[in-house]
Order: sequence, then structure tokens, then C-alpha cells
Amino acid sequence: MDSFSRPVGDRHFVSTMSFATATRLLCRRLGARIVATDEASRFAASFDASKISFLPAAVVKPRREAEIGVVLELANRYRVPVTVRGRGTTLMGSAAPVRGGWVIDLLGLNQIRIDAVAGLAHVQCGAKVADVQRAAAEAGWFYPPDPSSKEYCTIGGNIACNAGGMHGGKYGVTRDFVVALRGFLPTGEAVEWGTATKKFAAGFNLRDLWIGSEGMLGVVAGAVLKLIPQPATRWTLLTSFRDEQHAIESILRLFHQRVQPAICEFLDRESVRCAESAMQTTIFPGQAGRPVILLEFAGGAAEVREHKRQVLAWAAEHAAGYRAARNREEAEQLWTVRRKCSGAMFELGDAKLNEDVVLPMKNYVAFFRFLQRLKRTSGLPIPTFGHLADGNLHVNIMYHRADPKETRAAEAAVESLMRTVVKLGGAISGEHGIGLAKTPFLRVQHGPAEVKAMQAVKRALDPNGILNPGKMFEEVRIWKYPRLNVHLPWDHK
Amino acid sequence: MDSFSRPVGDRHFVSTMSFATATRLLCRRLGARIVATDEASRFAASFDASKISFLPAAVVKPRREAEIGVVLELANRYRVPVTVRGRGTTLMGSAAPVRGGWVIDLLGLNQIRIDAVAGLAHVQCGAKVADVQRAAAEAGWFYPPDPSSKEYCTIGGNIACNAGGMHGGKYGVTRDFVVALRGFLPTGEAVEWGTATKKFAAGFNLRDLWIGSEGMLGVVAGAVLKLIPQPATRWTLLTSFRDEQHAIESILRLFHQRVQPAICEFLDRESVRCAESAMQTTIFPGQAGRPVILLEFAGGAAEVREHKRQVLAWAAEHAAGYRAARNREEAEQLWTVRRKCSGAMFELGDAKLNEDVVLPMKNYVAFFRFLQRLKRTSGLPIPTFGHLADGNLHVNIMYHRADPKETRAAEAAVESLMRTVVKLGGAISGEHGIGLAKTPFLRVQHGPAEVKAMQAVKRALDPNGILNPGKMFEEVRIWKYPRLNVHLPWDHK
Repeated sequence: MDSFSRPVGDRHFVSTMSFATATRLLCRRLGARIVATDEASRFAASFDASKISFLPAAVVKPRREAEIGVVLELANRYRVPVTVRGRGTTLMGSAAPVRGGWVIDLLGLNQIRIDAVAGLAHVQCGAKVADVQRAAAEAGWFYPPDPSSKEYCTIGGNIACNAGGMHGGKYGVTRDFVVALRGFLPTGEAVEWGTATKKFAAGFNLRDLWIGSEGMLGVVAGAVLKLIPQPATRWTLLTSFRDEQHAIESILRLFHQRVQPAICEFLDRESVRCAESAMQTTIFPGQAGRPVILLEFAGGAAEVREHKRQVLAWAAEHAAGYRAARNREEAEQLWTVRRKCSGAMFELGDAKLNEDVVLPMKNYVAFFRFLQRLKRTSGLPIPTFGHLADGNLHVNIMYHRADPKETRAAEAAVESLMRTVVKLGGAISGEHGIGLAKTPFLRVQHGPAEVKAMQAVKRALDPNGILNPGKMFEEVRIWKYPRLNVHLPWDHK
Repeated sequence: MDSFSRPVGDRHFVSTMSFATATRLLCRRLGARIVATDEASRFAASFDASKISFLPAAVVKPRREAEIGVVLELANRYRVPVTVRGRGTTLMGSAAPVRGGWVIDLLGLNQIRIDAVAGLAHVQCGAKVADVQRAAAEAGWFYPPDPSSKEYCTIGGNIACNAGGMHGGKYGVTRDFVVALRGFLPTGEAVEWGTATKKFAAGFNLRDLWIGSEGMLGVVAGAVLKLIPQPATRWTLLTSFRDEQHAIESILRLFHQRVQPAICEFLDRESVRCAESAMQTTIFPGQAGRPVILLEFAGGAAEVREHKRQVLAWAAEHAAGYRAARNREEAEQLWTVRRKCSGAMFELGDAKLNEDVVLPMKNYVAFFRFLQRLKRTSGLPIPTFGHLADGNLHVNIMYHRADPKETRAAEAAVESLMRTVVKLGGAISGEHGIGLAKTPFLRVQHGPAEVKAMQAVKRALDPNGILNPGKMFEEVRIWKYPRLNVHLPWDHK
């Protein structure tokens, strides 16, 4: 049963009435330059990349961090739901204000300062991830987490969902690079978790509890991020294999040699066919539609040279075809296949259930066997690609929204997918989080005791339940809600 | 005010009486091979390396993980305090059963299994850290966290206090290597946080909340640890400098070149004098008592060669003296100074307040200036050494316990130290945790809102307050309690 039945946040009508008083008070406290109540501002803040819209009563755009505390304090007094957003690139609906109330838009807080000696980035929550990477690179340092939306998404959003990206296998995810957070408890008090140092063992680790809490346990205003030395060299290799099983068995052999690629992107046959159709060419002549693995190695010149030798020998033995980049331009070309595949999938259907499941390595082969069966039994195309070094696979269930049979098949497929992933020792999400979209599967991953503990923590920190209500624990079948027909800057053309 | 005034857990006399019934029930449930109530077993479990003793009513040594749940369930029913221990190497009193009750000793659960393809270690909580490292190394992998007690301490204990060690600056601490935990909520239910994969973004991050929670929010039964490829080569260099300020300014210049040593151990003049007196020689001829930095570089052969060139040029320019190891034997010799200094400090006093504070790099120099003043005003020797790559410094305030003036000076010094560390943007603990010993300073680090949030989380997960009660939040001046006159295997001779 869905926890709300209509796509607009009018369920709490009574409290919405009292929101009016609270919102007037909020405007008086922070001023009209900070608080917007016009239709356009409210509509813009009513949805994220999931494109399900819930109109809030006001949008707050803080210019100083302390203003976040003011909003939360008032929200608690008047029991107003508060949803925090960065750029809203989440596909999970995590930033959709499902209960209306107030949205805090943190894009205005976007300062970045690099400490080049300590190798730390001091950032505000609204800083763009790609900007942090560029600032770090200019100082000779590297910030590895790189969700594909990195030119749009913010550090605050990345912390909220513990974002990953293609570098996860070797370098880790957002959590692995956060050394300190400052921000506000749901009740409005300013807090700091950790210091600008790489060690901290004083008190419970609420820093990491905030990471991945999807804006439900506190509001991140700023962070200190750990950087690593910028790799001097990169080397890219594209390989193809006769089928999925062979590709996987081969890459596991490489891992067994303790060779850690910085990036290890896999595309199954269906994904390759999508990319090839968009590129209007075959990647390896005469080998149309073969699964590929794109490998990138990073490090000191000598280190990469060592890898190159090992990896070319491995490719010669196992790959059906391979092509190495001699320079960055050629590397960019090899990347085309990965960049094209995702958008091209919309040739196979106008709707996509994009599930970022994670599998343990020992069950990669079993999982791809299951996927073959799933494609057959569902009758749907399910192009799958992802990060083989950390098991984070993007399974794209494609269907036509107007076709009830396909829609039912897609729903059944996602259910079956989630159960299988957990049965194989994996995770229902590796980097997207739960938000609204994965709420029907939280209890597939977690038993009652685990969910109970999470909810107890939520109540402990947010006794009035004002922060991002309606997410994570209440089952919502997001695909049943009408989607806005809007084009977002990062959407495929 | 101390929260308990006598060093034996007889404060809760009434509940101790009812413990008898509960303990009988526990024996009946688990049997005499698991539950010990004899004097010797109870005494052995009554203290950790802080050597403050509190006699428990029973000691449980589980052979199967599920038995932990049985203990906790009964403990909740009868409100029996439960303290969990591994090898008890903590200096903070974190494993001392201050309220009596039951101790769970987890040394019996010590299995280790390495997944050589995925680069993961599957371990039980009682596994010794050095054993995990050896098992990983045999498979070509590396588990970097290395507290100096690694030949004794357990993974469970390391997770409980988020242990660090000398590798923290480059590789991170325990938290950075934990991908999944399984164990029991304080109320006894079995739970799992995370999967055996490097990505996980499904639900609140209670895995990391458990890490560093010092046995107060749950009991870790097993863990999946991330490994990294074993570095092929190590190279060690010992350098000396004319004074602390010059040493620090020099090492920051090296860091600014983005050179990351795997280990970067600093010893101030007083620490060096201790080591030299124990070694009965000067480290650099004609340079007695000069501060030293011991550097170790690790990586591929070519990578280390690159570093060597850079670092030798740096040493030639900045160091007063330096000596590089040509092989592992010579490296071991260079390490002697670091190994000898700590034990030799007991020439300066029979009591030591060993504080593992952390400083941000930008305030290293200011901190050492403060230390000079502190030595002068307290009149006490305060030899200091530590990990310059992560700012984790071990400040050793030496005094004679029988001398009331020195004791007062030591107490004042530790108070002043903690306030200064926090004022300089640092942490009161980097790897030891709070336990009992640092409870007077928790509120120096954390404001009321932060402590309130931590306590709310504690109450949420442990409503009956049975798990490791009396720690973290209640102020105890541990140094006022009589210490047992026992020799532990890792004590200096």
C-alpha cells in the first residue's frame, strides 16, 4: 500500500493550513530575498530527477549557514515538513517534498577551499562535485568520487546518498573521503562531527551516520574532504569478450593478480548494441554486439607502465578484441561507447527502471545467468552495465509506460531482481539510496530488527519527524505516479 | 564529580542481588563451559590495560555467535549490565565492567578467511589484528590499520574504538577498511549492516555508527574488511632536525610536494633522549637528543624509487642528519628508536598520562610551542611522539604517583592540553576513544547539542542501558583510582 495516494502534497490538509502562519513567520525572520513563495519557485523545488512533483509552501535559499538552523527551529515549532535539496539530480525521489512544507535549497552555499599541504578540501554543501575535483586537481590533488551527474550534483547531495561513481572499486565512495561534517540537527541545533584531521575517535560516529541518511537525520552545511595525490598518468584499454560469462571470468582472473584498475566498466551485449546503434558503427569490426570491459589505470608513470605490461598480456590471452589508447584523445574515443549506451536505451522503451544493485564478486556469474533468465521470462530488454571492480551494476529495465502488459512485466522484473540480488549476498542500492523509488525493497534488504533500529535512530534525532518525511520507510511505488514532462539539463536528448 | 566512587562494581547493590537469579538462568541456558562464575575468571575479566578493576558476576565465552544474542536478551530482561571485551588492550578503561554484571569475552570467535579475488577479509570479532594482516599478506593483500598492540588486540576491539596506527595518514583507519558488520543490537536481535561489497547505500549507515561506539551501541560478531594490494617494496629513512619547529616545517614542505609516506613517525627531543638512554647510544653521532622523523615509503618498486629520489633531495636540503636503510635489516635497526622510546619514559616517572590527541597540520607548530610552555609551567617531562601524516600525537605526561604536587601538575597539564587541542581545531582522541579515561574531556570536544544527540542515539538503541554502562558520558577521573599491580604481556619490562 502506498503511503500517499495523490502526487501532490495535500494529504496533511489541516497542518497545511497552519503552515501558512509558520510560513509568514519564516518570511519575517529571514526576509523575501531568502524565502520564496511564488508559484515558479515552488514548482521548481517540487521535484527532482524522478520528476514526481509535490508542491511545497515555500522555498528557502540560505545565504548563510546559520539560516538553516532558523528554518529547522521554526519547522519544529510548527511541525512543518522540511525537505533539503542540492541540484536535485537524484533519480530516487529523495529530494521530492512529498508532504509539502518547506524546501531548503542549498545551491547558494558553494564555497571551496583546498588545503594543499594537508590534502583536504573545505567545502560547503552546495559546491558542485566537478568543481571540487577541478579545484583539487589544480592543487595537484584528486577527489575520486565521480557520479555521472558530477557536473551538476552537489557535495551535500553526494554525502546525503553516499554517492559512488566509477572509481569506487579502487578508491572508495563519498563516505571514504569525508573527514568532518558540520550542519544542523533536525531540531535546529548547529553541530560538528569530526575535525579537519584524518583521525577522530571522540564520541559516537554521527558523521558517518549522517552520510547516506538521505537528508533525514540532519542537514549538512559543510564538509572537510580527504584528497589523494593526483595520479600522474592514466591509461585506457577497451576489451571485448565472446559473452558475459567469459568477460566476467576473465576480469576476475585479472583481479586475482591484485591488479586494481581505477575504472572497470562493463557493458553487456544489450548495452553494447544500444551504444553501437547510437554510434552507427561497431566497436570492434566484425564483432557487433559483444560485451565489453573498459579499463582505466591510474598512478605514477612507472606504476602504470607495470600494469600495462600485465594487462596487455591478460588481454591477449582472454579478450576477443582489445584496443589501447595511445593518448588522452584516443582514450576519450574509447569512452564513447560507455557514454552513449545509457541514452540510447530509450530506443527500447520510453520508461526505464534504473536499479543500481551491487553483487559480491563470487556471484557475478550467477547473477548474469539470472539476468538472462529475467530477460527471457519478462520479455523486456534489460541492458545492464556497471562497475565490475565494486560489483555496482546498473540494471535498466526498459518498457513502454502506455503498455499495461509491459508495465506489469517491468514491476515483476524489478521485484524478482531485488530478491535475487539480496539472495546472492548483494545490495539493492550501491550509490542511489532508497528515497521513494526503492522503498518497496528496503525490507527485502533489511530484516525487521534492522529497520526498527533505523527508525529508532530517526525518532531519537528527529522527534517531530519534520525532516524529509515520507522517505525510506513508507512503501511507495513511484513508477505509478504521473511524471512531469520537463527536460532537465542532464537528460539525454 | 565522578559517577562512581569505589573501584569495585558494588554500587548497584540491589540489582547485583537480582543478578544472581539472572546469572543462574544464564548458566542454565548456555552451560558451564560457556559461562564462568569462578573467582579467577571473574578477576581476569575485571580489568583492561587501564588496570582499574571491577568484578563482574559472570564471564561468558561464546563459542557460537548466536550465544551473544542469548546473553543480551537475558541481560535486558533482568537489567544486567553487559561489558564486551576482546583482549582488553585498551588504555582507556573501555572494557572495564564498571557496573559489574556480565562480561562477554569474544576471544574464542577468531576465524579468518581471505577472499583473494575480491580483496576482502571475512573475520570474526576475536581474530587478532596481526593474524588478519598475516593472512592477507599470504594472499598478496594488505590490511593497513596497525595499532601498536596488533599482536594482541582483536578486530572487534579495533572496530569498537576505530583504531588507527602508524599507517593512518596514507591509508586511513579501521573505519576505512570495514565494508560490513554483523552482530547484535543491545536488545539482542541479530543484525547485519552492509554486504561483502565495496558499495552499499540501502538504509541508514548503522555500520559506521557501530564503528567507534566503544561497545555501547551493539556487539560486533564478525566483519568484512577491505584489503588493498600488498606493496611490493618498502624503503625506510631516519632523519634528524635541529629542533621541533624545524622538523615540522620541513615535513610540511615534503607533504606539499604531494609525497605521501606510508609511515611518518615523529619523536620530539625528550622522546629521543628516552630512546637514546635505553639504547645507550646516540642515534646520529654528535647529535644527541635531536628530534627525529622516521619515514617509510611503500608501493611498487618504481613508485618507491621515484619517492626515494625526491625524499633524499628533501633530506639533503632540510635534515640535520639522515640515514637510509639499504635492506629490511637496516630498516629494523632504524625502527629501534621508535620502539624503545615509549618504555624508556618510565625513567622519568612511574605514572604516564598517554593522550592520543590529533592536530590539524596548519597548527602543528603552534601546538609544539604550547607543549614547550606546558613542560615549563607544569615542571613535568612530557615526551611526545606520533604520526605526522595524520596529526595523531601521543603526548605522555610523566609524573610520580606518590608525589601529590606532581600529580596535581599532571592533572592540570592534561586539562590544559585538551582545551588547547580543541582550540587549535583538533581532536582529544585519534585512536584510543573515550572509555573512562577521556570522559572528563568529552564536553571539551563536543557541545551540548552534540552530546545530547549521542545520548539520544544510545537510548534509542539500548533502551535499558545495559550495554557497557558508565562509559563515555559520565565523568570519571580514572587516574584517581587504584591500579592493579599486574604485568600484562604487552607491558614494557
